[in-house]
Parts: sequence; C-alpha cells; structure tokens
Amino acid sequence: MTADPFQAMAQALAGTFVVFDGPDGAGKSTQLGLLAEKLESAGVTICRLRDPGGTAIGDRVREILLDRAHEHMSVECEMLLYMASRAQLAYEFIRPALARGECVLCDRFISSTVAYQGAGGADVQTIRQVGHTAVGDAWPDLTVILDVDSAEGLSRIDSAPDRIESKALDFHQRVRELFLQQAADEPDTFIVVPTTGTVERTHGQIVQALAAWLDSRMD
Amino acid sequence: MTADPFQAMAQALAGTFVVFDGPDGAGKSTQLGLLAEKLESAGVTICRLRDPGGTAIGDRVREILLDRAHEHMSVECEMLLYMASRAQLAYEFIRPALARGECVLCDRFISSTVAYQGAGGADVQTIRQVGHTAVGDAWPDLTVILDVDSAEGLSRIDSAPDRIESKALDFHQRVRELFLQQAADEPDTFIVVPTTGTVERTHGQIVQALAAWLDSRMD
Repeated sequence: MTADPFQAMAQALAGTFVVFDGPDGAGKSTQLGLLAEKLESAGVTICRLRDPGGTAIGDRVREILLDRAHEHMSVECEMLLYMASRAQLAYEFIRPALARGECVLCDRFISSTVAYQGAGGADVQTIRQVGHTAVGDAWPDLTVILDVDSAEGLSRIDSAPDRIESKALDFHQRVRELFLQQAADEPDTFIVVPTTGTVERTHGQIVQALAAWLDSRMD
Repeated sequence: MTADPFQAMAQALAGTFVVFDGPDGAGKSTQLGLLAEKLESAGVTICRLRDPGGTAIGDRVREILLDRAHEHMSVECEMLLYMASRAQLAYEFIRPALARGECVLCDRFISSTVAYQGAGGADVQTIRQVGHTAVGDAWPDLTVILDVDSAEGLSRIDSAPDRIESKALDFHQRVRELFLQQAADEPDTFIVVPTTGTVERTHGQIVQALAAWLDSRMD
C-alpha cells in the first residue's frame, strides 16, 4: 500500500459540506483557503463560499447587516437577515455543488448566528429552527470551530471594525462560549481546533481532526 | 344618549393593531388612508405603517425584494427578507405605538407572506411560525382583507409592475385564495370586504365590519 493519507482524506471529503466558524480573528479565512488549496491539489473540486453574502442578493443583505448606521437593528431582524442570505446561498450554490459531488467549504454559517445573535439575546433553539427553514437539507456535515481567546482574536483584526466586531468584549466572550457549547452539544458534527500556534501548525491540527472525523463516520 | 357611533368605534380602536391586506389592486392604501383620516378627525392617534419597509432598514430590504434583477430569489430567502423587515417594524414602531395606546394601521403584514410565498410554494404553517419569531406580541388584532378578482385587481395597477406583480395570473389567483383561506380559518381576527363598489361604499362597508368586529369582542 502506497496510499497517501491526505489523498485518501481529500477523496472522502468530496460531496461533503464543511463549515469553518469561530470568534472574530480566529483565522478562519486563512485556514479555509489553505485547506481548499491542498484539497484542490489533491484533485477535489471545491466550492468555496462565505456567509453572509456569496450571492448577488446575499451581498446586498450583507451590506445592510454590516452598516454601522444600523446600530438600532433588532436581534430578530438581524437573525432573519442572516438566514435570508443563507437561504439564497443554499439555493444557488450549496445544494447544486453537493449534487455535483463537490466539497463545499463555507466561511461561517448557522453556527455563527447561534453564537452572535444568541449572545445578543435571541433564543438558541428558535435560531436553529429558523435555520432549518432557511437551508433545509443543505445542513453542514461538519463544522470546524477555530477557537481563540476573545481579546486575542479582536487584537488580530487589522481593519476598522464593522457593526458586529465593534461590540464590547463581554459580548465577544459570550459568543465564544456559544461556539464551544454547540461543539459540546453535538460532538458528531463539530470539532474544535485551538489557534494558538502558527498558521501551519493549526492547519496540521485541522487536517488531523478532519481525518479523525472521517474515520469516526466510517464506524 | 347622543353618542356618535363612529366616535365610539374610533375610541374602541385606540391601542389596537389593524392590518389592511389583500390582492394587488384591491385599494388597500386608499382605504387605509381614508380610515386613518376619519379616525384622526375623531381624535384617535394613528400610527400608519407599510410593510415591507417603514423603517430605514426595512426600506433597504424592500429594495432587494422588489428589484426585478432578483427573479432567481428562492422562496425561503424571500420569506425571510419579508420577516426581517417586519421584525424591525415591530421593534421600532408597532410595539411602542401600541404601548402609547395609539391605533396602528399597517398596509400588508404576515398575511401577505402567507398568501404570496405560500402561493410560491412555502409551507403556510412554517411561514406563520417564523412570523411569530419575527414579531412576537406585535401580532395584529384584526386583519381586514380587501378582496378583488385577480384579473380586475391587476388591471387597476397603473405603474410598471414590480417583481411580484409581474407574475402570472394563476399565481395571483392562488394568492387570492390564500387570503380568503386565512380569513375562513380565523374568523375572529379576519374580516373580508369586497371592493366591487365605489371607494366611498367600500369605506362604509369597512366601518360597518369594524363596528361588528368590535361588538363581537365585547361579548
């Protein structure tokens, strides 16, 4: 046997829907990009998406969500806008890509709404119910939570903070707790990877965790 | 007793939330305006709203919804955008106005989403559940359905049709049926008024129906 373990893992990810999520500044986009590149080199077709946005309609919704003039947005409105953007993403891209056998990698998804709007006071079970209405069977097979201490994560953001990022530290701490809680509640479909090391080291930990998750699915 | 029956009715409407809804071209805005004017003359403070829109955030959502470039919007996305706009309207205007004892008159509300997105294939019960999440206790006390034959209603529209209005006649017929079905299912909180007569005659029928509804509430 000369099978390359990464190659075997890459093939097993075809037709699955993997979300990268976690607190701001955890390095989700970097890690998602790195994994996408390696999977593509291994011959897997990747559908790379970001949420909110990712469609013409979703990008217009995203502008409303991140506009700092909208400080007075109610938590219900915010939650429903995220879900609307996501419903369109599921319809235009996620479902068709999975049907073609591609690996869908998405930067944030319903787990973000549970964490952020949950921290803002919305009921977590209600968020999940509306999420099911929004995306139906385009539900993630796996969500990788990239974990980072809240103060550390916020300090890593270079650009001017948007409406969500500019909230107080204790809000971001509740957000982090809600990400970890989701992973604790659903160990079969969530994995948590700490991001204290270098980018390369974190990437290695993600690959290991993905391989372990795929093994556990075979059982 | 010299009590003016309209005056008595007007006073009884303070602190209630009344929606005017129905198929396109039924004359909702005209009738809502006429009633608002008479109620204000009778000394009732009116909070007059339209849905979708009515807030800065909701107006941006409305633009996305009515943009003819968005023909490919999924029915779930559409439903969630309407609900998001409505959640903000409830938060900014409906709940505060009711708390001040005003009469809230709103042009369209959740009953429109049940009718239009229901006609587009969304599950009616799911729409109502998401509606409850969106507006909570800002639920209409009464919905007045202004009924019109679908072909007749569409022929009354002068302006260029928007994304929704330009759908086929059989879609608009299903919409009308779903408005009438809601009224049949919830006779305590819906009334149906036909709009075959003059504007003044229809207004008279609405006032009569409101008075009868208020009487039935007293029982």
